[in-house]
Amino acid sequence: MHVNVTRKALSDALGLMERVIPSRSSNPLLTSLKVDVSEHGLTLSGTNLEIDLSCVVPAEVRHPKSFVVPAHLFGQVVRNLGGELVELELDGSEISVRAGGSEFKLQIGDLDAYPPLTFPDAAHVSLDAAELARALGSVRYAASNEAFQAVFRGIKLEHHADVIRVVASDGYRVAIREFPSSGAGRNLIIPARSVDELIRVLKDGQARFTYGDGLLSVTTDRVHMNLKLLDGDFPDYERVIPKDIRLQATLSAALLKDAVNRVAVLADKNANNRVEFLISENRLRLAAEGDYGRAQDTLEVVQRGAEPAMSLAFNARHVLDALGPIDGDVELNLSGSTTPAIFRAAGERSYTAVLVTLRV
Amino acid sequence: MHVNVTRKALSDALGLMERVIPSRSSNPLLTSLKVDVSEHGLTLSGTNLEIDLSCVVPAEVRHPKSFVVPAHLFGQVVRNLGGELVELELDGSEISVRAGGSEFKLQIGDLDAYPPLTFPDAAHVSLDAAELARALGSVRYAASNEAFQAVFRGIKLEHHADVIRVVASDGYRVAIREFPSSGAGRNLIIPARSVDELIRVLKDGQARFTYGDGLLSVTTDRVHMNLKLLDGDFPDYERVIPKDIRLQATLSAALLKDAVNRVAVLADKNANNRVEFLISENRLRLAAEGDYGRAQDTLEVVQRGAEPAMSLAFNARHVLDALGPIDGDVELNLSGSTTPAIFRAAGERSYTAVLVTLRV
Repeated sequence: MHVNVTRKALSDALGLMERVIPSRSSNPLLTSLKVDVSEHGLTLSGTNLEIDLSCVVPAEVRHPKSFVVPAHLFGQVVRNLGGELVELELDGSEISVRAGGSEFKLQIGDLDAYPPLTFPDAAHVSLDAAELARALGSVRYAASNEAFQAVFRGIKLEHHADVIRVVASDGYRVAIREFPSSGAGRNLIIPARSVDELIRVLKDGQARFTYGDGLLSVTTDRVHMNLKLLDGDFPDYERVIPKDIRLQATLSAALLKDAVNRVAVLADKNANNRVEFLISENRLRLAAEGDYGRAQDTLEVVQRGAEPAMSLAFNARHVLDALGPIDGDVELNLSGSTTPAIFRAAGERSYTAVLVTLRV
Repeated sequence: MHVNVTRKALSDALGLMERVIPSRSSNPLLTSLKVDVSEHGLTLSGTNLEIDLSCVVPAEVRHPKSFVVPAHLFGQVVRNLGGELVELELDGSEISVRAGGSEFKLQIGDLDAYPPLTFPDAAHVSLDAAELARALGSVRYAASNEAFQAVFRGIKLEHHADVIRVVASDGYRVAIREFPSSGAGRNLIIPARSVDELIRVLKDGQARFTYGDGLLSVTTDRVHMNLKLLDGDFPDYERVIPKDIRLQATLSAALLKDAVNRVAVLADKNANNRVEFLISENRLRLAAEGDYGRAQDTLEVVQRGAEPAMSLAFNARHVLDALGPIDGDVELNLSGSTTPAIFRAAGERSYTAVLVTLRV
């Protein structure tokens, strides 16, 4: 077997593979990369048992023969190579990696022992990859990292009539992003950690979905990915979205972020990083206090609604997260001191953050 | 007390102070910053018992009164402020910090309980601050981090006739940098960790040294620093510098760094990251091997000296460290396979790295 491949193409693909393939495992085979070699090029594949990933690398090939190699070592070797053109050659129980004046001989693994990974050919539905990545990226923060909150550790993907909606929640907040899409598909819950890897492989073009048994397969131009899905009922998040908005305040999201960051320095970490919001007379007054002192900050807002003033409190961290995907102005839609609030980009409804208020 | 000060001046000074003042300590007073307020401005001071630091901040002051405040909290508050002008005002047991639309009230500490820090007025000798910082920065890597290697954890500063020499060694390598200086002063050993902080406060202008009892005081335009010195005899490092150079090889330091980085991927971490150097016929061949395979790399060199070929081995990490301060070409001056080697910038003698070779 003899392969000529560019260092950039190979190291980009290895970069994706190394994120999925564990660097340590009680089963050393799992730390390996499988390289299927055909006349068209290389197909790299690997798994962490939650995600299977495979990635195509164009290459010039003679005498194709597949092999298995330690993934992270191979990645490190390729990234450090000097030349732009890399030569691979199988030589008994070793693979030679040559570029510029360098030659590496790496031990290869047992090809037959490597678990078979299969990726579907046909797709059930096709989505815009960039829109999907942006939507998942916007709501990711609201998924839970706590081990006991089963479905809260996932992101729900819902097919509606003209839109796809992605939703994440940890029980204290909900983040929702919608984008236009016409295809009808299944609703499903993807583990948030797998979503991180999915976002990374989604670029432009189409993401083609194939539904399996407890499994979603996603195919793009260069990559196949199988994702294990979460089982269970996602909570009825619509129930917590307030309908009756009593006060709306609009201001620059960037100024609000800075001010919340500022007063949060003094907020009590053991009391949910509590920051008070007091809105009245076109002003938002932020206040926080902790063991070492007190902080306050005043910002101008454009105020609307039936209620002339409102006082409520949030976890500063949750406010900053909710503002993350919002550029320009943010609308704070408030239903009362003890009921959830809605944060949205002003005049825009594709992204919605719902936050519970802290008790007075 | 009322102070007007620019945010940048105050937060730059706090940045330096926060590096020295511990964020946690069994003695909470040590986590405090003392702010001496006079009609000329603020003098911030603090200590970690190894280093005392004081730093002047110009400010507009009315009714001067000194205070003590939690250093890291004060730093965080000031860094996050919105406006460019900061107002400080003492108000009972609190200090108000105001800027833009923000107001912070921080609890102040017990001024009388704060340990007195004294900094000398007169200086014994004066050095170029930038040269000193560069010299210390060039040799810092060779100082030991091992707790049991007492004086090896320090950097020695020697006054010679026309030069100052700084030296660091961990017993496996020696790094030396010299720079011209005429003043006569004491030879001393500064703990490497304190050197890190000293480098940070040295900018341009002069560094004025005052010698105390086991103490060096360094004064620059803005900063006073007292450094506790290390006691003990620095090893006779000159003894290990080889005099009889049998082979000299010259090549680009950057190319050598890349190649060593490359082959070191396969070097055995449990065997000193061993990389073999074989020089002959104007070529340097690097080789390494470990559990997963072998690597080699060939570079062209300009070769001189009595010996036509030489084979020796180094710790890859030590080679990379030694090359760190060298731009352009490096000269490898080799005395034999089992005796130390000298690395220098080609045609330049101000920086010298001496490395022991690994056993064959």
